[in-house]
Amino acid sequence: MILILKRDHDPQQLETLTAWLNTMGVSTHLSRGEFQTILGLVGDTSRVDIDLVKSMDIVEDAKRIQEPFKNANRKFHPDDTIIDVGGVKIGGGHMQIIAGPCSVESEEQIIGIAKDVKAAGATLLRGGAFKPRTSPYSFQGLRAEGIELLLKAKEETGLPIVTEIMESSHLPFFKDVDVIQVGARNMQNFELLKDLGRTDKPILLKRGLANTLEELLMSAEYIMAGGNQKVILCERGIRTFETATRNTLDISAVSMLHEMSHLPVVVDPSHATGIARMVPPMSLAATAAGADGLIIEVHNDPRHALSDGAQSLTPAAFAELAGQIRGIMPIVGKTA
Amino acid sequence: MILILKRDHDPQQLETLTAWLNTMGVSTHLSRGEFQTILGLVGDTSRVDIDLVKSMDIVEDAKRIQEPFKNANRKFHPDDTIIDVGGVKIGGGHMQIIAGPCSVESEEQIIGIAKDVKAAGATLLRGGAFKPRTSPYSFQGLRAEGIELLLKAKEETGLPIVTEIMESSHLPFFKDVDVIQVGARNMQNFELLKDLGRTDKPILLKRGLANTLEELLMSAEYIMAGGNQKVILCERGIRTFETATRNTLDISAVSMLHEMSHLPVVVDPSHATGIARMVPPMSLAATAAGADGLIIEVHNDPRHALSDGAQSLTPAAFAELAGQIRGIMPIVGKTA
Amino acid sequence: MILILKRDHDPQQLETLTAWLNTMGVSTHLSRGEFQTILGLVGDTSRVDIDLVKSMDIVEDAKRIQEPFKNANRKFHPDDTIIDVGGVKIGGGHMQIIAGPCSVESEEQIIGIAKDVKAAGATLLRGGAFKPRTSPYSFQGLRAEGIELLLKAKEETGLPIVTEIMESSHLPFFKDVDVIQVGARNMQNFELLKDLGRTDKPILLKRGLANTLEELLMSAEYIMAGGNQKVILCERGIRTFETATRNTLDISAVSMLHEMSHLPVVVDPSHATGIARMVPPMSLAATAAGADGLIIEVHNDPRHALSDGAQSLTPAAFAELAGQIRGIMPIVGKTA
Amino acid sequence: MILILKRDHDPQQLETLTAWLNTMGVSTHLSRGEFQTILGLVGDTSRVDIDLVKSMDIVEDAKRIQEPFKNANRKFHPDDTIIDVGGVKIGGGHMQIIAGPCSVESEEQIIGIAKDVKAAGATLLRGGAFKPRTSPYSFQGLRAEGIELLLKAKEETGLPIVTEIMESSHLPFFKDVDVIQVGARNMQNFELLKDLGRTDKPILLKRGLANTLEELLMSAEYIMAGGNQKVILCERGIRTFETATRNTLDISAVSMLHEMSHLPVVVDPSHATGIARMVPPMSLAATAAGADGLIIEVHNDPRHALSDGAQSLTPAAFAELAGQIRGIMPIVGKTA
Repeated sequence: MILILKRDHDPQQLETLTAWLNTMGVSTHLSRGEFQTILGLVGDTSRVDIDLVKSMDIVEDAKRIQEPFKNANRKFHPDDTIIDVGGVKIGGGHMQIIAGPCSVESEEQIIGIAKDVKAAGATLLRGGAFKPRTSPYSFQGLRAEGIELLLKAKEETGLPIVTEIMESSHLPFFKDVDVIQVGARNMQNFELLKDLGRTDKPILLKRGLANTLEELLMSAEYIMAGGNQKVILCERGIRTFETATRNTLDISAVSMLHEMSHLPVVVDPSHATGIARMVPPMSLAATAAGADGLIIEVHNDPRHALSDGAQSLTPAAFAELAGQIRGIMPIVGKTA
Repeated sequence: MILILKRDHDPQQLETLTAWLNTMGVSTHLSRGEFQTILGLVGDTSRVDIDLVKSMDIVEDAKRIQEPFKNANRKFHPDDTIIDVGGVKIGGGHMQIIAGPCSVESEEQIIGIAKDVKAAGATLLRGGAFKPRTSPYSFQGLRAEGIELLLKAKEETGLPIVTEIMESSHLPFFKDVDVIQVGARNMQNFELLKDLGRTDKPILLKRGLANTLEELLMSAEYIMAGGNQKVILCERGIRTFETATRNTLDISAVSMLHEMSHLPVVVDPSHATGIARMVPPMSLAATAAGADGLIIEVHNDPRHALSDGAQSLTPAAFAELAGQIRGIMPIVGKTA
Repeated sequence: MILILKRDHDPQQLETLTAWLNTMGVSTHLSRGEFQTILGLVGDTSRVDIDLVKSMDIVEDAKRIQEPFKNANRKFHPDDTIIDVGGVKIGGGHMQIIAGPCSVESEEQIIGIAKDVKAAGATLLRGGAFKPRTSPYSFQGLRAEGIELLLKAKEETGLPIVTEIMESSHLPFFKDVDVIQVGARNMQNFELLKDLGRTDKPILLKRGLANTLEELLMSAEYIMAGGNQKVILCERGIRTFETATRNTLDISAVSMLHEMSHLPVVVDPSHATGIARMVPPMSLAATAAGADGLIIEVHNDPRHALSDGAQSLTPAAFAELAGQIRGIMPIVGKTA
Repeated sequence: MILILKRDHDPQQLETLTAWLNTMGVSTHLSRGEFQTILGLVGDTSRVDIDLVKSMDIVEDAKRIQEPFKNANRKFHPDDTIIDVGGVKIGGGHMQIIAGPCSVESEEQIIGIAKDVKAAGATLLRGGAFKPRTSPYSFQGLRAEGIELLLKAKEETGLPIVTEIMESSHLPFFKDVDVIQVGARNMQNFELLKDLGRTDKPILLKRGLANTLEELLMSAEYIMAGGNQKVILCERGIRTFETATRNTLDISAVSMLHEMSHLPVVVDPSHATGIARMVPPMSLAATAAGADGLIIEVHNDPRHALSDGAQSLTPAAFAELAGQIRGIMPIVGKTA
């Protein structure tokens, strides 16, 4: 961190500041220029609160040079992290397709879809049991029962399962879940992150709608600081001024996260766009950009014609897409 | 709600759609034009999932005409809601100043500030006990002990207290708190909102960094649908491309929320800007725009010179500001 | 367009409104419901100012059903537009790579790069002559002389040239330019767009930093309404809250523009990210998403080591990337 | 500016970089730490292109310490600039109300409104002659004839006039205009800014929809670098994710611009919100925040009932608002 001091700063205050920094194990290096004086901070500055420092009387501005995250930082862990979920590898050249319905609705539905997506090439099964909904009047999911049904589908197909948690007190229901998902709205639910840091399960951490990549990595850091290093990052679209698509898929996040961190990065094109016919091109784009995985909504209820065409693909459309994905993977150095 | 149907829609599908809508108590009105066919939905459409409808094969687009929130809606409750907190009224022409430190640090600190802000004209005391922090390495608050200290300050000064909750399981610690605050990052923590809907305490609900006013009212609706009608809305800045200020205070939210809803609206200029010297002009602007309250950070520790100048005002600066606020209040028809 | 009328609207005002709409050739259809009255507008509503209508006393809200653009609209022109630039085709299954330096610096430079990018597979040459710069103290380009040098490079290599215009009065300098580029900052310079509508040259129209896809198509409409139908749309990143990359490449714009319009869509990954090492993954992503072209910055000055590594690729890196692009093209149904 | 060098940088490249900086009159100061090496740049760095520097092989990151604008910078001009428009003063404690119609429509209309707004307390007259419109099919203004009509209204009332320019070639029409307005869409039309820098008229420069405050000041710098120091900055709302209001009025921009610059700052609440009933609260908020002026749309055509209620106030509503504004002005230290 570098502090730009005010031109007319009080030497006494500078002394107090330096002493305070020393108590945190940070030493300083002063460089007086004609127009400004710069105080360089040497050592581990991750505990120095930049907002607090900026607010001090003698400080004009403060700029971070080191990232405030450590466990998630590529600089300290140059090799890609590979996360093994029941034999299925994510990261470090391994790309996987996670597929399944938005919500678990019935045993028949989830087992049917699980078989379909497995046949088409998916290697993990997703399905919503606890559902965060904007409106209190919307369907809130089958909750604990939904997880039971996912486990049955796992039994039938062998696919490891991924499902979302909304509150720490629900953790007991997740004891047999393979990957616990943290939704975008909970990315900064710090109490939940701390509790997940004390588990040993892989966590699929979705980027919040308006969170920076640095904030996403700070939330990963919450989990990792608790001891759980198995974090999978997920880009799922950010909120911008554009309303033609539900959100704006930040495809450059894939490359940038790979640079900033060693953790695997998956992309959710279904929630990013909210439009089924845009899922295939966005899935291919994510693959070409180097994503380590895709999480795609697939629906299979032909009798329920009304929800056809939602942000979920039909099994047939998914199978076709999976073939194209496999065509692009070797061009960008990926295998399953 | 109005559905624009595709030009070549299948009459069978239209029949299925109409039947499905009828099961939700919604009747329809079809209007065929030269270029498009429009299906008007009549009745309470708050249970109709607009995303689902948009995704149907025969639907080209769907547009809401009625807002999806009811309890919070001005149309169904034309009169301003006035919330009474231990005799202090917020809303309906009553404007209050909530003041106090960012974090509760010690008994001496919180009682000292409470006395100062009361003398200057504040009518409620704020203070952070459970603190959401971006970094796991930052101070996380005194937690339950902080609430004890706030209660002591209340005993000393008579000021009702406002403090933030982060998780439902902490609710027992809040039994003597006067107003429970939901932070911006938890605005869509729906499990927490449901649990707060089952309490009878006023809830100060902060707008999320990237949430629309409609989403804020839908979160209020979660609380109100549970039976608790005492919701105070809070604008605290939104995330935009501008980086000169920490967030962008959306001052027009005050007027717009007053139009959309009968609930009181308070403004938090301290978190919105993150810069102490901008708190006075933004407080005055919020007052002039018609806010029903302000929530302002005040710090009083003269020995801890390093944190002077943060986003917190000194008691002296706060007292001066409170005088200006009282000057503007009658011009816009407000009393305490 | 659909107007939702206020419940207690004045019948006299409704008559005045209907009469006014009739003068614009728009007829109306009234539908009175229990809670609201809806006025459907039938006919060509592209001349009806939606903001004006919304502001009328008797109107509660107005919603567009038809897009306000016609010439650029896919609905009225279902087939892809293919633009032929000196025999090089863009759109309708034809994908091209436009490459060249950020600024034209010298004859030697531009001819050298032109030869390099041609050898690697580029089919058009780009280069900045008139340069829009945020700071008045930055290099403003070689201006008219830069265009002369581009024409020499065209003579040497046969590559058609693409270069940016900043003001209508410069049009005479562009008489031999093959494609005239309108930069992001001029996307809504309507006087310039009108003047370009009177030329017969292909226009590469970049999306503004904060402009919606609809606004981009309205700007295309300005050119097309003047008689020039040869518009190439260009996504080059939008401004969001994220600062890790210079802009956020809106990759879903490619698919969405293809749906809304018949015009070809190219992507500029160099300006979108501002970081050379992100240009290859973003180029591959754009190709996989179905872009009709890429516009990539390439620099070739080995002696000027200081600017190596900018947002411009070296010719070697560009050649490698071009090979990968050619690998993806057939998977998404594209040829040169 | 501070450059953070890569850990393993090539000493040869460092020498080249230092030499290149010296050619621009910038000297350097090297500070080697355990984890990073920092190169401090001493002198006038406004000509150093930060993007270019960041892209260099040996540079990991670059951070500006000095602002890239000089003429507009408060640091070098501590006193407020007061701009005198025909005896009417803007800035330095003087606040003015600019009012008038969106578009000039006829002699009768503009003279009528001019008299009304003057009577209510406006001291400058605004009116659109050259109109930037999103759609080519919308009314484009009376253009040169509109300016003639504004000049007649000035003759009748004595109010100085403010009107928008869209292209340098129209400058001859503006020779008797008192204040030339640059619209939001032209804020970075650098050719136009350069030409305005060669005039001696006050320029009212509107912030672009998605431009930072620094970029606004860089555009002011374009005008000032040409010799014209009379720039009035204007906040008119920015584009965010929120759609309840047309734009989000960035009220904190008023305070922040006053800190960054000595130039006067006016606010346009009419365009910011697009809703007439929100103009009064936003005008009062801007006044309370310390704005040096307001620019408000007023319409006076009682026979043209259809456009009543637009973003324009009636003369009566404007007169009432002007009274409230005068009530707040002394509280924040402002006189006319």
